[in-house]
Amino acid sequence: MSALDTAMPARMTEVRAAIKTGLETALARLPAGELRDAMEYGCVGGKRIRGFLVMESARLHGAEDAAALPVALAVEMLHAYSLIHDDLPAMDDDDLRRGMPTCHIQWSEATAILAGDALQSLAFEQLTDPAVGDTEVRVTLVRRFAEAIGARGMVWGQMQDISAEQAVEPLDLNAVKSLQQAKTGALIGFAATAGAVMRGADPAPMAEYARNLGLAFQIADDILDVTGDEETAGKRVGKDAAAGKATFVSLLGLEEARDKAAAMVRRAELALTPYGDGDQTGAAAENLRQLARFVIHRQT
Amino acid sequence: MSALDTAMPARMTEVRAAIKTGLETALARLPAGELRDAMEYGCVGGKRIRGFLVMESARLHGAEDAAALPVALAVEMLHAYSLIHDDLPAMDDDDLRRGMPTCHIQWSEATAILAGDALQSLAFEQLTDPAVGDTEVRVTLVRRFAEAIGARGMVWGQMQDISAEQAVEPLDLNAVKSLQQAKTGALIGFAATAGAVMRGADPAPMAEYARNLGLAFQIADDILDVTGDEETAGKRVGKDAAAGKATFVSLLGLEEARDKAAAMVRRAELALTPYGDGDQTGAAAENLRQLARFVIHRQT
Repeated sequence: MSALDTAMPARMTEVRAAIKTGLETALARLPAGELRDAMEYGCVGGKRIRGFLVMESARLHGAEDAAALPVALAVEMLHAYSLIHDDLPAMDDDDLRRGMPTCHIQWSEATAILAGDALQSLAFEQLTDPAVGDTEVRVTLVRRFAEAIGARGMVWGQMQDISAEQAVEPLDLNAVKSLQQAKTGALIGFAATAGAVMRGADPAPMAEYARNLGLAFQIADDILDVTGDEETAGKRVGKDAAAGKATFVSLLGLEEARDKAAAMVRRAELALTPYGDGDQTGAAAENLRQLARFVIHRQT
Repeated sequence: MSALDTAMPARMTEVRAAIKTGLETALARLPAGELRDAMEYGCVGGKRIRGFLVMESARLHGAEDAAALPVALAVEMLHAYSLIHDDLPAMDDDDLRRGMPTCHIQWSEATAILAGDALQSLAFEQLTDPAVGDTEVRVTLVRRFAEAIGARGMVWGQMQDISAEQAVEPLDLNAVKSLQQAKTGALIGFAATAGAVMRGADPAPMAEYARNLGLAFQIADDILDVTGDEETAGKRVGKDAAAGKATFVSLLGLEEARDKAAAMVRRAELALTPYGDGDQTGAAAENLRQLARFVIHRQT
């Protein structure tokens, strides 16, 4: 194992700790009670891949950790809200998440809906933190965030996913791809390009990285749903196949899905070519390369 | 009837038309489908009191209608999302709203949850519209909006309301007041102070106006729940009494509740004293005075 191979996990640990503390601090400012407890519960655990993307995207463009952290918190809060709402009985009806009972099981449906709603607002609030940058940067981030997570992005993707479950014909590969590029890809795209926006740089290379990373991530998720076990994954598996849902695995088969994910990872790595190998830039680019490889080898 | 008495309804009609067109335009930019249809459905109708507050608050401070409109749209989208989620079976479980089936009855629970979620994001997006003002103004509005509608404001109030329904002891007057100041008052406060923020003026007088207007509005709502009829109100009435819920009417009686609402309206009018009587300012202040009187005499 090279020095860089150990640097990425160390950085991941550091980022996770910073995000954990940041989330706790932001939530501690809210009035105590069941709403805050449920919001906090929804934010516990997780791989923090989206937050890590923000931090490394920032470093890649020469932004400070202190400036990137509120953006990473926004992305993680938003992700937590989306999971809480996706798990609701009227949606995916899941009872297990990150190895714990889902939010509406632990509390109640009403509390879970409200905790998700309030996490969305709190995510936007993070982006207004003066530490992030000047007002131009912050407004641009708010606009890009709103576009990524709403009726053109994440929520649109989730709606397609729900509709597909009720449709007679399963989706084809293009439809699954565009659904996933919205449902998980849009927020990943926001996270990966945040550093460029913060420094007024061209976000295109990181957008290309994110497109490939997002699809590789989703293919890996579909593979895990078939091959993973619940205890390691911390969530129910085998649900998609049981529901007859079109996934990358059902459409491509396990082997071709694996090949496709590996090809996406190579393209994601290639997208990082424009970035130099300065101390900070090089370390961040290498971490992002390793992250791309990590997402298809993870077990959770 | 004086000229001013006819000016306010005319301005209200004008503002409602501008908001209707603005909402339609913003929603038309989204991908077609059930999600957009449900979002549009949730935005139809309504008195547009919050949007009107934004427009008159802007005029009171010398801001243009074109600058205020995106903020009014944000407030109305946010209000629409809050009604869609409040009406859900796990929340207030209402089947009638603005004289039409509620969103989850018309579509489905999943669609209603997602339509609300996407309306929240879209509301934030409106605030980033360059027409609103410079980046400093827009970031400040985003921050104030996030604070007003989240776990310190609107959602906190809704959570208290839901919890109160399950509690053994009904709430006392102070608890009902603080619940309502959050649940309906926080967004009204944001709307009423938006103009001051847009023009860098002191928001305190309009915040005082909004506090009183919001409480008068809520007392009138509680009175309507007892004395109103469903057809005129366009929503179910008598629900609070049937649920044994503490309201301003159950705590004060009908007569004292009416007196209190009238006193609040006088205080709201008094809060407008600092504003001059220039052409625009005077007209806006007079409209805001009439709005305060309107909220306690409305039948819906």
